[in-house]
Amino acid sequence: MSDYHRKNRRRGFQKERDLVRKLWDMGFATIRAPASGAKAKKTYQPDIIAAKNNRILVIEVKTRSSSDVVYIDQYQVEKVLEWVKRAGSNATGMIAVYFDRRQGWRFVPIESAVKLDSGGVKITKEDADKGLPLDKLREI
Amino acid sequence: MSDYHRKNRRRGFQKERDLVRKLWDMGFATIRAPASGAKAKKTYQPDIIAAKNNRILVIEVKTRSSSDVVYIDQYQVEKVLEWVKRAGSNATGMIAVYFDRRQGWRFVPIESAVKLDSGGVKITKEDADKGLPLDKLREI
Repeated sequence: MSDYHRKNRRRGFQKERDLVRKLWDMGFATIRAPASGAKAKKTYQPDIIAAKNNRILVIEVKTRSSSDVVYIDQYQVEKVLEWVKRAGSNATGMIAVYFDRRQGWRFVPIESAVKLDSGGVKITKEDADKGLPLDKLREI
Repeated sequence: MSDYHRKNRRRGFQKERDLVRKLWDMGFATIRAPASGAKAKKTYQPDIIAAKNNRILVIEVKTRSSSDVVYIDQYQVEKVLEWVKRAGSNATGMIAVYFDRRQGWRFVPIESAVKLDSGGVKITKEDADKGLPLDKLREI
Protein backbone atom coordinates (compact mmCIF):
# COMPACT_ATOMS: atom_id res chain seq x y z
CA MET A 1 0.00 0.00 0.00
CA SER A 2 1.38 3.41 -0.94
CA ASP A 3 1.76 6.29 1.52
CA TYR A 4 -0.98 8.01 -0.40
CA HIS A 5 -3.40 5.15 0.14
CA ARG A 6 -2.37 4.64 3.73
CA LYS A 7 -3.08 8.29 4.45
CA ASN A 8 -6.48 8.13 2.75
CA ARG A 9 -7.30 4.97 4.65
CA ARG A 10 -6.39 6.59 7.96
CA ARG A 11 -8.42 9.67 7.09
CA GLY A 12 -11.36 7.41 6.23
CA PHE A 13 -11.19 5.67 9.63
CA GLN A 14 -11.07 9.03 11.37
CA LYS A 15 -14.18 10.20 9.52
CA GLU A 16 -15.89 6.93 10.38
CA ARG A 17 -15.12 7.37 14.07
CA ASP A 18 -16.46 10.92 13.90
CA LEU A 19 -19.67 9.62 12.33
CA VAL A 20 -20.14 7.04 15.10
CA ARG A 21 -19.68 9.80 17.67
CA LYS A 22 -22.25 12.01 15.95
CA LEU A 23 -24.80 9.20 15.75
CA TRP A 24 -24.22 8.44 19.44
CA ASP A 25 -24.76 12.11 20.29
CA MET A 26 -28.05 11.98 18.36
CA GLY A 27 -29.26 9.23 20.68
CA PHE A 28 -28.43 6.17 18.60
CA ALA A 29 -26.91 3.08 20.15
CA THR A 30 -23.84 2.46 18.00
CA ILE A 31 -21.26 -0.23 17.37
CA ARG A 32 -18.40 -0.15 14.91
CA ALA A 33 -16.75 -3.24 13.49
CA PRO A 34 -12.95 -3.52 13.58
CA ALA A 35 -11.34 -2.07 10.47
CA SER A 36 -9.94 -5.12 8.82
CA GLY A 37 -10.38 -5.20 5.09
CA ALA A 38 -10.09 -8.98 5.21
CA LYS A 39 -12.75 -10.58 3.06
CA ALA A 40 -12.09 -14.09 4.26
CA LYS A 41 -14.37 -13.64 7.26
CA LYS A 42 -16.92 -16.28 8.09
CA THR A 43 -19.51 -13.73 9.14
CA TYR A 44 -20.49 -10.50 7.43
CA GLN A 45 -19.82 -7.37 9.45
CA PRO A 46 -21.06 -4.01 8.20
CA ASP A 47 -19.04 -0.94 9.20
CA ILE A 48 -21.53 0.45 11.72
CA ILE A 49 -24.80 -0.60 13.34
CA ALA A 50 -26.90 2.23 14.76
CA ALA A 51 -30.13 1.42 16.62
CA LYS A 52 -32.83 3.65 18.06
CA ASN A 53 -36.50 3.17 18.97
CA ASN A 54 -36.39 -0.37 17.63
CA ARG A 55 -35.13 0.78 14.22
CA ILE A 56 -31.77 -0.54 13.04
CA LEU A 57 -29.50 1.15 10.51
CA VAL A 58 -27.01 -1.17 8.85
CA ILE A 59 -24.34 1.15 7.55
CA GLU A 60 -21.48 0.86 5.07
CA VAL A 61 -19.23 3.91 5.13
CA LYS A 62 -17.57 5.51 2.08
CA THR A 63 -15.46 8.64 2.18
CA ARG A 64 -13.90 10.20 -0.89
CA SER A 65 -12.26 13.54 -1.42
CA SER A 66 -10.44 13.10 -4.71
CA SER A 67 -13.32 12.04 -6.94
CA ASP A 68 -17.05 12.61 -7.30
CA VAL A 69 -18.17 9.00 -7.16
CA VAL A 70 -17.97 6.09 -4.72
CA TYR A 71 -18.25 2.43 -5.61
CA ILE A 72 -19.53 -0.20 -3.23
CA ASP A 73 -18.45 -3.62 -4.42
CA GLN A 74 -20.65 -6.70 -4.57
CA TYR A 75 -19.22 -8.15 -1.36
CA GLN A 76 -20.02 -4.98 0.57
CA VAL A 77 -23.53 -4.80 -0.87
CA GLU A 78 -24.13 -8.44 0.03
CA LYS A 79 -22.96 -8.05 3.59
CA VAL A 80 -25.36 -5.18 4.18
CA LEU A 81 -28.30 -6.97 2.52
CA GLU A 82 -27.67 -10.22 4.39
CA TRP A 83 -27.41 -8.38 7.72
CA VAL A 84 -30.67 -6.51 7.02
CA LYS A 85 -32.47 -9.72 6.07
CA ARG A 86 -31.38 -11.44 9.26
CA ALA A 87 -32.05 -8.49 11.57
CA GLY A 88 -35.65 -8.14 10.41
CA SER A 89 -38.12 -5.71 8.89
CA ASN A 90 -37.07 -2.88 11.23
CA ALA A 91 -33.61 -2.82 9.66
CA THR A 92 -32.56 -0.59 6.76
CA GLY A 93 -29.36 -0.84 4.73
CA MET A 94 -27.65 2.51 4.24
CA ILE A 95 -24.54 3.76 2.50
CA ALA A 96 -23.11 6.71 4.42
CA VAL A 97 -21.09 8.83 2.00
CA TYR A 98 -18.85 11.79 2.67
CA PHE A 99 -17.38 13.73 -0.25
CA ASP A 100 -16.69 17.07 1.33
CA ARG A 101 -17.44 19.40 4.21
CA ARG A 102 -20.02 21.41 2.31
CA GLN A 103 -22.20 18.40 1.50
CA GLY A 104 -21.41 16.62 4.77
CA TRP A 105 -22.62 13.09 5.45
CA ARG A 106 -25.39 11.76 3.24
CA PHE A 107 -27.28 8.53 3.78
CA VAL A 108 -28.44 6.66 0.69
CA PRO A 109 -30.67 3.59 1.17
CA ILE A 110 -28.80 0.75 -0.50
CA GLU A 111 -31.79 -0.18 -2.67
CA SER A 112 -31.90 3.33 -4.16
CA ALA A 113 -28.25 3.25 -5.25
CA VAL A 114 -27.42 2.74 -8.93
CA LYS A 115 -26.77 -0.95 -9.61
CA LEU A 116 -23.74 -2.00 -11.63
CA ASP A 117 -23.28 -5.09 -13.78
CA SER A 118 -20.54 -6.17 -11.37
CA GLY A 119 -23.13 -6.67 -8.62
CA GLY A 120 -21.94 -3.56 -6.81
CA VAL A 121 -23.50 -0.11 -6.70
CA LYS A 122 -22.25 3.42 -7.24
CA ILE A 123 -23.19 6.77 -5.77
CA THR A 124 -22.18 10.03 -7.40
CA LYS A 125 -21.87 13.26 -5.47
CA GLU A 126 -25.04 14.37 -7.24
CA ASP A 127 -26.91 11.23 -6.10
CA ALA A 128 -25.64 11.87 -2.59
CA ASP A 129 -27.27 15.30 -2.63
CA LYS A 130 -30.64 13.52 -2.70
CA GLY A 131 -29.65 11.32 0.25
CA LEU A 132 -30.61 12.08 3.85
CA PRO A 133 -28.35 14.51 5.68
CA LEU A 134 -27.33 13.46 9.19
CA ASP A 135 -29.93 15.56 10.99
CA LYS A 136 -32.77 13.96 9.01
CA LEU A 137 -31.89 10.63 10.55
CA ARG A 138 -33.55 11.86 13.72
CA GLU A 139 -36.88 11.26 12.06
CA ILE A 140 -36.13 7.63 11.37
CA MET B 1 0.45 -7.97 31.78
CA SER B 2 1.85 -11.40 32.68
CA ASP B 3 2.14 -14.26 30.20
CA TYR B 4 -0.56 -15.99 32.18
CA HIS B 5 -2.99 -13.09 31.72
CA ARG B 6 -2.04 -12.57 28.09
CA LYS B 7 -2.76 -16.20 27.38
CA ASN B 8 -6.14 -16.02 29.14
CA ARG B 9 -6.99 -12.85 27.28
CA ARG B 10 -6.16 -14.46 23.94
CA ARG B 11 -8.18 -17.53 24.85
CA GLY B 12 -11.09 -15.26 25.77
CA PHE B 13 -11.02 -13.53 22.38
CA GLN B 14 -10.94 -16.88 20.63
CA LYS B 15 -14.01 -18.04 22.55
CA GLU B 16 -15.75 -14.77 21.75
CA ARG B 17 -15.07 -15.19 18.02
CA ASP B 18 -16.41 -18.76 18.23
CA LEU B 19 -19.57 -17.46 19.88
CA VAL B 20 -20.12 -14.89 17.12
CA ARG B 21 -19.71 -17.63 14.54
CA LYS B 22 -22.24 -19.86 16.35
CA LEU B 23 -24.79 -17.05 16.59
CA TRP B 24 -24.31 -16.30 12.88
CA ASP B 25 -24.85 -19.97 12.04
CA MET B 26 -28.10 -19.86 14.07
CA GLY B 27 -29.35 -17.10 11.76
CA PHE B 28 -28.48 -14.05 13.84
CA ALA B 29 -27.01 -10.94 12.23
CA THR B 30 -23.88 -10.30 14.32
CA ILE B 31 -21.29 -7.63 14.88
CA ARG B 32 -18.37 -7.70 17.27
CA ALA B 33 -16.68 -4.61 18.64
CA PRO B 34 -12.89 -4.36 18.44
CA ALA B 35 -11.18 -5.81 21.51
CA SER B 36 -9.75 -2.76 23.14
CA GLY B 37 -10.08 -2.70 26.87
CA ALA B 38 -9.81 1.10 26.71
CA LYS B 39 -12.39 2.72 28.94
CA ALA B 40 -11.77 6.24 27.70
CA LYS B 41 -14.13 5.78 24.76
CA LYS B 42 -16.70 8.42 24.01
CA THR B 43 -19.32 5.88 23.04
CA TYR B 44 -20.26 2.64 24.78
CA GLN B 45 -19.65 -0.48 22.74
CA PRO B 46 -20.86 -3.83 24.03
CA ASP B 47 -18.86 -6.91 22.99
CA ILE B 48 -21.42 -8.29 20.53
CA ILE B 49 -24.72 -7.25 19.00
CA ALA B 50 -26.85 -10.08 17.62
CA ALA B 51 -30.13 -9.28 15.86
CA LYS B 52 -32.86 -11.52 14.49
CA ASN B 53 -36.55 -11.04 13.68
CA ASN B 54 -36.42 -7.50 15.02
CA ARG B 55 -35.06 -8.64 18.39
CA ILE B 56 -31.68 -7.32 19.47
CA LEU B 57 -29.36 -9.01 21.95
CA VAL B 58 -26.81 -6.68 23.54
CA ILE B 59 -24.11 -9.01 24.78
CA GLU B 60 -21.20 -8.72 27.18
CA VAL B 61 -18.94 -11.77 27.08
CA LYS B 62 -17.21 -13.35 30.07
CA THR B 63 -15.09 -16.47 29.93
CA ARG B 64 -13.46 -18.03 32.96
CA SER B 65 -11.79 -21.36 33.45
CA SER B 66 -9.89 -20.92 36.70
CA SER B 67 -12.71 -19.85 38.99
CA ASP B 68 -16.42 -20.42 39.48
CA VAL B 69 -17.57 -16.82 39.33
CA VAL B 70 -17.42 -13.92 36.89
CA TYR B 71 -17.68 -10.26 37.80
CA ILE B 72 -19.01 -7.63 35.44
CA ASP B 73 -17.90 -4.19 36.59
CA GLN B 74 -20.11 -1.12 36.78
CA TYR B 75 -18.76 0.31 33.51
CA GLN B 76 -19.61 -2.87 31.63
CA VAL B 77 -23.08 -3.06 33.16
CA GLU B 78 -23.72 0.59 32.28
CA LYS B 79 -22.64 0.21 28.68
CA VAL B 80 -25.05 -2.67 28.16
CA LEU B 81 -27.95 -0.89 29.89
CA GLU B 82 -27.37 2.37 28.00
CA TRP B 83 -27.20 0.53 24.68
CA VAL B 84 -30.43 -1.35 25.46
CA LYS B 85 -32.22 1.86 26.47
CA ARG B 86 -31.21 3.58 23.22
CA ALA B 87 -31.93 0.63 20.94
CA GLY B 88 -35.52 0.27 22.19
CA SER B 89 -37.92 -2.16 23.79
CA ASN B 90 -36.92 -4.98 21.41
CA ALA B 91 -33.43 -5.05 22.90
CA THR B 92 -32.30 -7.27 25.77
CA GLY B 93 -29.05 -7.02 27.72
CA MET B 94 -27.34 -10.36 28.18
CA ILE B 95 -24.18 -11.61 29.84
CA ALA B 96 -22.79 -14.56 27.88
CA VAL B 97 -20.72 -16.67 30.25
CA TYR B 98 -18.49 -19.61 29.53
CA PHE B 99 -16.95 -21.55 32.41
CA ASP B 100 -16.29 -24.90 30.81
CA ARG B 101 -17.09 -27.24 27.99
CA ARG B 102 -19.61 -29.24 29.95
CA GLN B 103 -21.77 -26.25 30.79
CA GLY B 104 -21.08 -24.45 27.51
CA TRP B 105 -22.32 -20.93 26.84
CA ARG B 106 -25.03 -19.61 29.14
CA PHE B 107 -26.95 -16.38 28.64
CA VAL B 108 -28.03 -14.52 31.75
CA PRO B 109 -30.26 -11.43 31.32
CA ILE B 110 -28.36 -8.59 32.94
CA GLU B 111 -31.28 -7.66 35.19
CA SER B 112 -31.35 -11.17 36.69
CA ALA B 113 -27.69 -11.10 37.67
CA VAL B 114 -26.75 -10.58 41.33
CA LYS B 115 -26.08 -6.88 42.00
CA LEU B 116 -23.01 -5.83 43.94
CA ASP B 117 -22.49 -2.73 46.07
CA SER B 118 -19.84 -1.65 43.56
CA GLY B 119 -22.50 -1.18 40.90
CA GLY B 120 -21.34 -4.28 39.06
CA VAL B 121 -22.90 -7.72 39.00
CA LYS B 122 -21.65 -11.26 39.51
CA ILE B 123 -22.61 -14.60 38.07
CA THR B 124 -21.57 -17.85 39.68
CA LYS B 125 -21.30 -21.08 37.75
CA GLU B 126 -24.42 -22.20 39.61
CA ASP B 127 -26.32 -19.06 38.50
CA ALA B 128 -25.14 -19.70 34.95
CA ASP B 129 -26.77 -23.13 35.06
CA LYS B 130 -30.13 -21.36 35.20
CA GLY B 131 -29.22 -19.17 32.21
CA LEU B 132 -30.27 -19.94 28.65
CA PRO B 133 -28.06 -22.36 26.76
CA LEU B 134 -27.12 -21.32 23.23
CA ASP B 135 -29.76 -23.45 21.51
CA LYS B 136 -32.55 -21.84 23.54
CA LEU B 137 -31.73 -18.49 21.96
CA ARG B 138 -33.44 -19.76 18.83
CA GLU B 139 -36.74 -19.16 20.57
CA ILE B 140 -35.96 -15.52 21.20
